[in-house]
Amino acid sequence: MILFDSDYQEGCLPQILEALAKTNMEQTPGYGLDPYCEKAKDLIREECGTPDAAVHFLVGGTQTNATVVSYILKSYQGAICADTGHINVHETGAVEHTGHKVLVLPSRDGKITATQIDHAMTVHDQDCVKEHTVQPGLVYISFPTECGSIYYKSELEDIHAVCVKWGLPLFIDGARMGYGLCAEDCDVTIKDIAALADAFYIGGTKQGALFGEAVVFRNKDFAPDFRYSIKQNGAMLAKGRLLGIQFEVLFTDGLYYKASREADRKAMRIRDAFRKKGITFLVDSTTNQQFPILNEKQMASLAVKFSFEQWQKLDAGRCAARFCTSWATTDEAVDQLISEIKKL
Amino acid sequence: MILFDSDYQEGCLPQILEALAKTNMEQTPGYGLDPYCEKAKDLIREECGTPDAAVHFLVGGTQTNATVVSYILKSYQGAICADTGHINVHETGAVEHTGHKVLVLPSRDGKITATQIDHAMTVHDQDCVKEHTVQPGLVYISFPTECGSIYYKSELEDIHAVCVKWGLPLFIDGARMGYGLCAEDCDVTIKDIAALADAFYIGGTKQGALFGEAVVFRNKDFAPDFRYSIKQNGAMLAKGRLLGIQFEVLFTDGLYYKASREADRKAMRIRDAFRKKGITFLVDSTTNQQFPILNEKQMASLAVKFSFEQWQKLDAGRCAARFCTSWATTDEAVDQLISEIKKL
Amino acid sequence: MILFDSDYQEGCLPQILEALAKTNMEQTPGYGLDPYCEKAKDLIREECGTPDAAVHFLVGGTQTNATVVSYILKSYQGAICADTGHINVHETGAVEHTGHKVLVLPSRDGKITATQIDHAMTVHDQDCVKEHTVQPGLVYISFPTECGSIYYKSELEDIHAVCVKWGLPLFIDGARMGYGLCAEDCDVTIKDIAALADAFYIGGTKQGALFGEAVVFRNKDFAPDFRYSIKQNGAMLAKGRLLGIQFEVLFTDGLYYKASREADRKAMRIRDAFRKKGITFLVDSTTNQQFPILNEKQMASLAVKFSFEQWQKLDAGRCAARFCTSWATTDEAVDQLISEIKKL
Amino acid sequence: MILFDSDYQEGCLPQILEALAKTNMEQTPGYGLDPYCEKAKDLIREECGTPDAAVHFLVGGTQTNATVVSYILKSYQGAICADTGHINVHETGAVEHTGHKVLVLPSRDGKITATQIDHAMTVHDQDCVKEHTVQPGLVYISFPTECGSIYYKSELEDIHAVCVKWGLPLFIDGARMGYGLCAEDCDVTIKDIAALADAFYIGGTKQGALFGEAVVFRNKDFAPDFRYSIKQNGAMLAKGRLLGIQFEVLFTDGLYYKASREADRKAMRIRDAFRKKGITFLVDSTTNQQFPILNEKQMASLAVKFSFEQWQKLDAGRCAARFCTSWATTDEAVDQLISEIKKL
Repeated sequence: MILFDSDYQEGCLPQILEALAKTNMEQTPGYGLDPYCEKAKDLIREECGTPDAAVHFLVGGTQTNATVVSYILKSYQGAICADTGHINVHETGAVEHTGHKVLVLPSRDGKITATQIDHAMTVHDQDCVKEHTVQPGLVYISFPTECGSIYYKSELEDIHAVCVKWGLPLFIDGARMGYGLCAEDCDVTIKDIAALADAFYIGGTKQGALFGEAVVFRNKDFAPDFRYSIKQNGAMLAKGRLLGIQFEVLFTDGLYYKASREADRKAMRIRDAFRKKGITFLVDSTTNQQFPILNEKQMASLAVKFSFEQWQKLDAGRCAARFCTSWATTDEAVDQLISEIKKL
Repeated sequence: MILFDSDYQEGCLPQILEALAKTNMEQTPGYGLDPYCEKAKDLIREECGTPDAAVHFLVGGTQTNATVVSYILKSYQGAICADTGHINVHETGAVEHTGHKVLVLPSRDGKITATQIDHAMTVHDQDCVKEHTVQPGLVYISFPTECGSIYYKSELEDIHAVCVKWGLPLFIDGARMGYGLCAEDCDVTIKDIAALADAFYIGGTKQGALFGEAVVFRNKDFAPDFRYSIKQNGAMLAKGRLLGIQFEVLFTDGLYYKASREADRKAMRIRDAFRKKGITFLVDSTTNQQFPILNEKQMASLAVKFSFEQWQKLDAGRCAARFCTSWATTDEAVDQLISEIKKL
Repeated sequence: MILFDSDYQEGCLPQILEALAKTNMEQTPGYGLDPYCEKAKDLIREECGTPDAAVHFLVGGTQTNATVVSYILKSYQGAICADTGHINVHETGAVEHTGHKVLVLPSRDGKITATQIDHAMTVHDQDCVKEHTVQPGLVYISFPTECGSIYYKSELEDIHAVCVKWGLPLFIDGARMGYGLCAEDCDVTIKDIAALADAFYIGGTKQGALFGEAVVFRNKDFAPDFRYSIKQNGAMLAKGRLLGIQFEVLFTDGLYYKASREADRKAMRIRDAFRKKGITFLVDSTTNQQFPILNEKQMASLAVKFSFEQWQKLDAGRCAARFCTSWATTDEAVDQLISEIKKL
Repeated sequence: MILFDSDYQEGCLPQILEALAKTNMEQTPGYGLDPYCEKAKDLIREECGTPDAAVHFLVGGTQTNATVVSYILKSYQGAICADTGHINVHETGAVEHTGHKVLVLPSRDGKITATQIDHAMTVHDQDCVKEHTVQPGLVYISFPTECGSIYYKSELEDIHAVCVKWGLPLFIDGARMGYGLCAEDCDVTIKDIAALADAFYIGGTKQGALFGEAVVFRNKDFAPDFRYSIKQNGAMLAKGRLLGIQFEVLFTDGLYYKASREADRKAMRIRDAFRKKGITFLVDSTTNQQFPILNEKQMASLAVKFSFEQWQKLDAGRCAARFCTSWATTDEAVDQLISEIKKL
């Protein structure tokens, strides 16, 4: 059985294990106050073109989202988000657990638009509405989205502009940022992300690290007390250097991009194989997640040799399946999958 | 410079790194639903003598405490705790962040007594008090305590009895459980802990793992939906097997105890060296943390070659310092420290 | 200017003021532990046909919803609710402020169906969904709804049955319960409500009291510690007897129904006047709130003499307006309004 | 039986009932946006000498404290408070329910000092402490305190100065402010309070209103979105004018002070009677609450004709009792009590 369920089924890029082994018995201070974290932060600041940015390392995506969102929001504020957004659907209410409402905007492909945000703010900004409803306090988007789609540069610029107009911080969830940046149709760079978002994070867990997410605040004065929130949310790793070591490896010699690009290339091979069979997709995705719409027979047939996720049940017994590639996917595994797709 | 500041200054026991390397490219399901976690859970259940226990793996101590406490408590309840307790003083209000008050009892040595708990419950149980105050909903103790002291078996039995009397679950924070169980004067076994506590956790982070804490609910029906809380609190590791692999190693061939015992032995060497110089301690500790009371000159003298924590400032320029040993401490390092202590 | 904006524009039924004046200098214990509250609770238990019910008096609707919902839910649970539901749209995230997500179901007329609830539970009850999402922990509906519509008895019975099936408590927000029970097409009695809901509240604020909501738990063992939550949520009135006195008056000699029935009758007069002009409504309502869809000219024309709410902006400059009657509305005021409607 | 248990055992000052009756059938907008609230706010601003202050009316003390505290604090901050403070001991964890820790300082008489606050801040402001603990985000004191004592002007000025030094907002709970301001030894005016506190509230509930507390922010820009928090915390009264009407009455012709002064005078009569019998007090109080220390026989003797609170159990069967006077206490009732005290 070959698993295509998710992008966190293996351990980590071998270079990371090597670095961990090499440094294992060194003594360093805890809580991320070590030289490895400092080095990794410098690499990230350089990569982002933001010398004044603050960088923090957390362990996982849900805790990162809840920590950043609850840090930014005031007690009576909420986060604008696509109805498909990860914080709205797959985090067991972690944001609400910190006391904040997720303010949803409808989305077909995982994306929201500047126009939608502007409209929501205009509706809120009426005297008879205001204090009787949650005040929008930030905009949350993910890049790529929950559905594998990516924002184009002009879309991000428009969202940035509407955020500036309304004084809303923009927070980009980059759990799979590498797979987005390396997509064949992507016109966005990490420097663009860093220039347009007030806060974002660069995912490690789904991108070849054992675990870890790097939060970047473009302006280090944006979140001066963020370490309090990291600790309060149980996200401050005692042996913080483990995060620094991993991100140093990822951002040395472009490893982060190399691994992402390979995963995307393999996902495109899978996409093309489904397309050739006339199979359509829930969303057009150029990243490492593919959502072909399969009927029961097709699913049963592929399920013999492969494991994949049943993402969304549709009518007539059809289902949008999810096939993920990752830094760890081999061309041999993809060959085998394509061979079975051809038989459908 | 040799660091004695804490027990999380190195990476992990080498056996753990080996196991991670060996399994690195295997494919498993995420979120702790893999065979390694299952194996580790079985080992822990066996070690605890609790075949019906539920075992869950989380990443760090603060998140474990907040997740367990907020799972157990009802919205209007709080956690009884020593004023020195970790959740009260060193977790940036993580428990309060989930909406619950920490109800403190005064403590000199980090321990609280059954009598104190009984008195607090009696005071609460008056009509004029009850609903105007937070209802105690669990008792939190740590083993060993924040100050390195340990509860003796009869003390735990008394606390257990008073908890039963008042219907209070007992939760034991075992971030350093191994160092407690292996202390020279310890008459408690992990089976005792498992028999007396409704919930407890076995610390990994400070005990030789890279990270990880194993929560044990003696009765698996005690917390049937605990995985929701793990996820909601950002404590569900995507690559959950990393936790299973580590705890499998720790609980194979008694590695957990061997490593703890060595650390305690070294701590006793340090303790005895201070004692011989007539230096007293903040608390009598037989575990891996020692709190000698030093004057300014003594601190300055030791600070030349060693790093340690200034735990608590006392009068006349004196300070209780903290020296920690761990699974990673070498006898050579201890020799050097003792050599300098002798010169004080 | 005559105000039809809401049903809380005047003080209270004169009988209430009289009772307050008559009892003003009596001495009683605080916090609702007085004979007036006891008397009012007995009257409500009798009216509901639930001798074992627990009754509690709180001050306002938002605090009542947040207090009941946060009492019932476990930390990882949320409340199923129509997207139009008051807790979702008009309470500034009070429920989320207590840490819980509102789980919305789409609604056209303010109502949700047993089928929708069953489907939501079925979707949640999949292994790949469960702990990654908020667990539904109760069903919240309002009677009448935010849009003035009412559930019919069979609909409530179906919702009750599906709640029993899934083990979900049913909570009915009755801020305007009287206006619902007295509607011309209502086949539901307060005894039905009490038999079908685990918890509900009888609104006072919008029904002729100065303020106050009476929460009823059919089974007094359902929420034994509810007074802790009342206090914790700032909803325990020091001079609690003010609530008891008001509800005693409301439930003596059927005053609650008399006042509601009159309000509904006047609302029907307004509805019919709009209908005769061929004006349609956002929702068919037989209760005290009417939502005629008006164009700009019509709104401007009525706004000369009357104040009303612009409930929802529609296309082409049209708007659903809200006209409310209440226990305090006079036939003279309605006559004047109808006279102007005729001129539209 | 005459009740001296608390200062909320009767209804309200008769002038308030008259005003409510007189305005009962007027129509006004809801939620505090009515002319009565505006008038009352003007009166309070004038009385406080703060023309730029923002004034808001809430219903009760616990909700006011939780709403103000959670508005001011950031998510990782807590409130410095005496261990005897109302938010710490008598509000069922309402502040913690909003996610914030109460940071206690020890107190004998209900008061804390500038020196204590400065010390707490100095301890917090160490690198090894900071983010591992809750950041102090405001100072909460009450005037008079929970124990009836008052701060003198120089003490408030010192606290103000230390708050300015550390950038901490100062919030004064004035649930019984009138009884404090009218105490025989008080050298503080409401203008002083308004000049020294960033936020405070003027209690109505315990000072002759049916209910209601007036929150004052000296600088209206300090809390521009406070109405969101009022609503979110369930503290926005639908018929908000009821609060405006009451505070207008209280601050017309000095009624607030007259009623308070009378209550204090009667409390001093009771104090002196106990003193003459050689009975000592838990705390020296010059306000409406007196805490004589009684033995069992004395308590039993007084309990025949009077009801009072058993505030704190002491050793040897002794107990600190609480006797409260209020705006409603008559000299006749006090005469009877004194007569019985003489017989002790």
